[in-house]
Amino acid sequence: MSHHSVPVAPARGALRPLGLDEVTISGGFWGDRQQRNAQATLAHIEGKLESEGWLGNFDLAAAGRLPEGRRGREFADSEIYKYLEALAWELGRHDSPDLEQRFRAIVMRVAAAQQPDGYLHTAFGRPGQRARWSDLEWGHELYCFGHLFQAAVARERTRPGADDGLLAVSTRVADLVCDVFEDGGIESICGHAEVEMGLAELARVTGSPRYAAMARTFVERHGRGTLREIAYGREYFQDDVAIREAEVLRGHAVRANYLSAGAVDVAMDAGDADLLDALRRQWAQTVATRTYVTGGQGSHHEDEAFGDDFELPPDRAYSETCAGIGSVMFSWRLLLAGDIGGGGVEKYADLIERTLYNVVATSPSRDGRAFYYANTLHQRVARQPAHPEATSANAASSLRAPWFDVSCCPPNVARTLASLAAYVATADDDGVQLHQYAPASVRTVLADGREVAFDVETSYPDAGTVRVVVRSAGEWTLGLRVPSWAEGAQLRVGDELPVAVTPGRADVRRDFVAGDVVTLELPMAPRVTRPDPRIDAVRGCVAIERGPEVLALESLDLGPAGDDVDDVVVAGDPVERDGRVRVPLRRMKVDAGGWPYGGDAASIGGGVPEEAFEVPLISYHDWANRGPSTMRIWLPEA
Amino acid sequence: MSHHSVPVAPARGALRPLGLDEVTISGGFWGDRQQRNAQATLAHIEGKLESEGWLGNFDLAAAGRLPEGRRGREFADSEIYKYLEALAWELGRHDSPDLEQRFRAIVMRVAAAQQPDGYLHTAFGRPGQRARWSDLEWGHELYCFGHLFQAAVARERTRPGADDGLLAVSTRVADLVCDVFEDGGIESICGHAEVEMGLAELARVTGSPRYAAMARTFVERHGRGTLREIAYGREYFQDDVAIREAEVLRGHAVRANYLSAGAVDVAMDAGDADLLDALRRQWAQTVATRTYVTGGQGSHHEDEAFGDDFELPPDRAYSETCAGIGSVMFSWRLLLAGDIGGGGVEKYADLIERTLYNVVATSPSRDGRAFYYANTLHQRVARQPAHPEATSANAASSLRAPWFDVSCCPPNVARTLASLAAYVATADDDGVQLHQYAPASVRTVLADGREVAFDVETSYPDAGTVRVVVRSAGEWTLGLRVPSWAEGAQLRVGDELPVAVTPGRADVRRDFVAGDVVTLELPMAPRVTRPDPRIDAVRGCVAIERGPEVLALESLDLGPAGDDVDDVVVAGDPVERDGRVRVPLRRMKVDAGGWPYGGDAASIGGGVPEEAFEVPLISYHDWANRGPSTMRIWLPEA
Repeated sequence: MSHHSVPVAPARGALRPLGLDEVTISGGFWGDRQQRNAQATLAHIEGKLESEGWLGNFDLAAAGRLPEGRRGREFADSEIYKYLEALAWELGRHDSPDLEQRFRAIVMRVAAAQQPDGYLHTAFGRPGQRARWSDLEWGHELYCFGHLFQAAVARERTRPGADDGLLAVSTRVADLVCDVFEDGGIESICGHAEVEMGLAELARVTGSPRYAAMARTFVERHGRGTLREIAYGREYFQDDVAIREAEVLRGHAVRANYLSAGAVDVAMDAGDADLLDALRRQWAQTVATRTYVTGGQGSHHEDEAFGDDFELPPDRAYSETCAGIGSVMFSWRLLLAGDIGGGGVEKYADLIERTLYNVVATSPSRDGRAFYYANTLHQRVARQPAHPEATSANAASSLRAPWFDVSCCPPNVARTLASLAAYVATADDDGVQLHQYAPASVRTVLADGREVAFDVETSYPDAGTVRVVVRSAGEWTLGLRVPSWAEGAQLRVGDELPVAVTPGRADVRRDFVAGDVVTLELPMAPRVTRPDPRIDAVRGCVAIERGPEVLALESLDLGPAGDDVDDVVVAGDPVERDGRVRVPLRRMKVDAGGWPYGGDAASIGGGVPEEAFEVPLISYHDWANRGPSTMRIWLPEA
Repeated sequence: MSHHSVPVAPARGALRPLGLDEVTISGGFWGDRQQRNAQATLAHIEGKLESEGWLGNFDLAAAGRLPEGRRGREFADSEIYKYLEALAWELGRHDSPDLEQRFRAIVMRVAAAQQPDGYLHTAFGRPGQRARWSDLEWGHELYCFGHLFQAAVARERTRPGADDGLLAVSTRVADLVCDVFEDGGIESICGHAEVEMGLAELARVTGSPRYAAMARTFVERHGRGTLREIAYGREYFQDDVAIREAEVLRGHAVRANYLSAGAVDVAMDAGDADLLDALRRQWAQTVATRTYVTGGQGSHHEDEAFGDDFELPPDRAYSETCAGIGSVMFSWRLLLAGDIGGGGVEKYADLIERTLYNVVATSPSRDGRAFYYANTLHQRVARQPAHPEATSANAASSLRAPWFDVSCCPPNVARTLASLAAYVATADDDGVQLHQYAPASVRTVLADGREVAFDVETSYPDAGTVRVVVRSAGEWTLGLRVPSWAEGAQLRVGDELPVAVTPGRADVRRDFVAGDVVTLELPMAPRVTRPDPRIDAVRGCVAIERGPEVLALESLDLGPAGDDVDDVVVAGDPVERDGRVRVPLRRMKVDAGGWPYGGDAASIGGGVPEEAFEVPLISYHDWANRGPSTMRIWLPEA
């Protein structure tokens, strides 16, 4: 049992994840966001959990005053647990008596609501409430428990043996879950996957094979028509095809990713190579056919679901923040498992990087107190800001909103940012692999006792230079991911001549001495990206990317050229000047109105084009921080 | 008060609609569908209304046994009323003792459920049910009443003075509505527009100014924040902007069209030129920016709503059948009102024709016992047939389905087909205008007593020849619509030389003698249609049209070329041969998999194209009648 501060600690696997106790992000793009998360977002979330009454639900439960006065949706408990998990990771980054006190105070309120048999949910089971387990399709009971378990795991891995009681609360819940749901009991599953991951990690923390077996059972019960049919179809909760027979992720995109992540956990613990292989194939197919250029997943607003292959409309992208986080969880677990089909594990880190920069970083506002729930790739009509005190009912009706009726995303962002250092690096028997680039310090001990210490110095992604400064002496291998987009990257060891490295992994094996420097130079010129021709919705368009960032055109930058991003076309290659990527545009010629379909191309958008003008692009994640605007990533070509 | 058999009888207006007593469709495309409607669909619907228990709800109400046992959604009553309306029109087409008996039997069951004060709804107001008017946002009480009124109007106009009691039931309900909702009472509206049209026509049938005033009040209360805010926003039920200040249709597409149609009724009766002009502008803007090439409207599945301007994804088209029918209702009312801005009223008939052929005709299956609720323009994955006994919960999960949980579309199609002859022709002081082409006989009397009689002989849209054979003697003007797509049309009067006519209206004023023939020749060669460049979702694609029909590529016609409509491109112009339109295609070159975005066009869909092969297209409305298939209207160009 690992005591490293990691969210995922498989018993086996090719690579061991380094935890918050081994990796510290010390600044830069992600360091800034971690700081904002700590200084603004966590308090913002706790304020909302109090003012919305979702924390108060536990007090009412403890006082025997439910169901009267209960507030929030049936899954509101889970937001408290995700917040606790975020606090646990934040406390794993550095001590804070204030945060520690807040953490313990909430755990006490949660624990007080636990019933004698271990059941712990504020929306079910009391007189006047629906019976326990009576609505597995929509009730989210096990989903909430899964988040509780993850919070307890985060706490145990960052404060082993803490006497706050959260782990004991969780194991009592987990014992009850096993009593109720093991074969011979209620042989069903939760309509929203999550408990699988939670149980698998709780098993790893406690050493309980029963929890691991329960996780496996839940995973395997999916796809057997276990739940009732619903209007969205059984694929909505992945109960349509058995998990090892599925070919691609489908249905609700958060559910699909959470289930897949939990299934990797199960496969790793059970040594189930067939299951692992099925999940690798599903991941590859999902990336090839159902993922936005941002890494976002989910193209249906109606059921928050994946669409069919290549159904990726930018203007109706749902790309839920939580689905992006779920995708990071799934990819990270496959990375740790290692790869068999060739190509290495870097493809998983590539998608993680893409998703972190272009989905997870897009969600929070600059002040850390408002969030996108859905992350559209094309905003046609400027949305107004949400009222700062408002709770938003609709995930797409405003600019970033401070809170939602269904507020899964804000605490999910918070726990992800607080634990982000745990996704930076791994170790194997002979060294350390760097998967994400940020200013960081890495200190670890390999399995055979060799100490490895180095710092990463970089202003990535502003610039493409990544300097690894070794701080320990000894022979080991440094692995550096060369992103898939980084054609022309170069690696330099000390004063040696630079050598070209190709996308994948560049290994440097040396008998290092403290002060040695390894420098990776990643090419940061803007790139013109074209879509697979089967993605109908962006045919004839290009996206501009720079490093790991997808760029966007925001109407506020059109200046005197107007305010509509929808009537311009790209008229040339992007250039970088004065620190910004600029692209030449021309206005489209369009008719004044009338039936918008006709035989003559010249009459529809034809005519003599205007002169080109140059407009700066912004990082997509930075859009909608300057007030109402329209925006698009995919730009039509002239 | 007109006693002609028409669904819409404005007191004034440029054109008087000819009713079922004046126009008979005698065969052809629409005649076949009317026959199928009469022989299969009506009985199918009645069977479902019985087996689903929605008719039985009225019996339970009469027996005082509600709410226990009530079945169906809160708006289930409305389906009975739409079915009654369909029966009334069908009985207006020709006598049928059997239908007459069925009509009267249902009216008796409905009437028995009416409460002493006139209230008549099976889902509200009894102990154990929600209170009357307690949920105007979602309750659909007034919506149901509106359909009741339309049924009573249809009956009164096809069987004036019938002693079945439906009109008396309706006026008692309408009196109650006025008592409750007039200013000083509940100053609100229904979340689903419909009662406005119903009250306006009931006023025309009964001569009650009170009903007309109530209709006007309901129309004017929209857009004033009258209803509670909902998650979809107030635009969902058009309560966001006052109707005379709105610029375009928005929100739920059926609600928006029904409200607009009712508002035209109100504007006509009140002589409110400003309101009428606002509605004409909204119609024009909606057609220019928010309408599919099929005439379909609504691009959001989530809220069954219009999207933003030019947000018209073919693969996520909702294009609800009922929205198409609502659009026909709105357009027809504007046509009757006449036009002021130039261009004539033919644009309204153009959209009606497009919508009838490509939305309304698409919904029912060939056997008339299954229906599309949503009408996608691009089916990426073949759907399986719905179970013939099943009630479909999801409007897009199968091929046409026999019935739906929300089953508004089947009876809406039935009433539309049964009354279709009333949308064919109008009269003004000097003659008759033909707006739709079908084999038909037309017999009417102009305002000054001149008798006009003629037959229409045509196999349109198979062929483009429309022969009008005059059967009466006298001087009058025959107006023939030349569709907007019919560049190169020719008109011939008797043995005279043909003359070219341009889109709009071709008038022939003659002192006709019986036997005179006027022949319109419409060009029926397939046309290549390109979209406005702002419609991102179909950039780089063409649609093929022929006459009023939009054509489609169905996978079943790809033959040895494979079964996926999504990896072919158009490689040349369509040709017509052996009675079918054929188009040369080539297979797209696509990569085997991997990240679907890249810099090199050649690596994504590039390479040497295969040889072209020729594939027949079908009429879009005819797709999915040969089993599971994929389909697309918009075809990428090579």
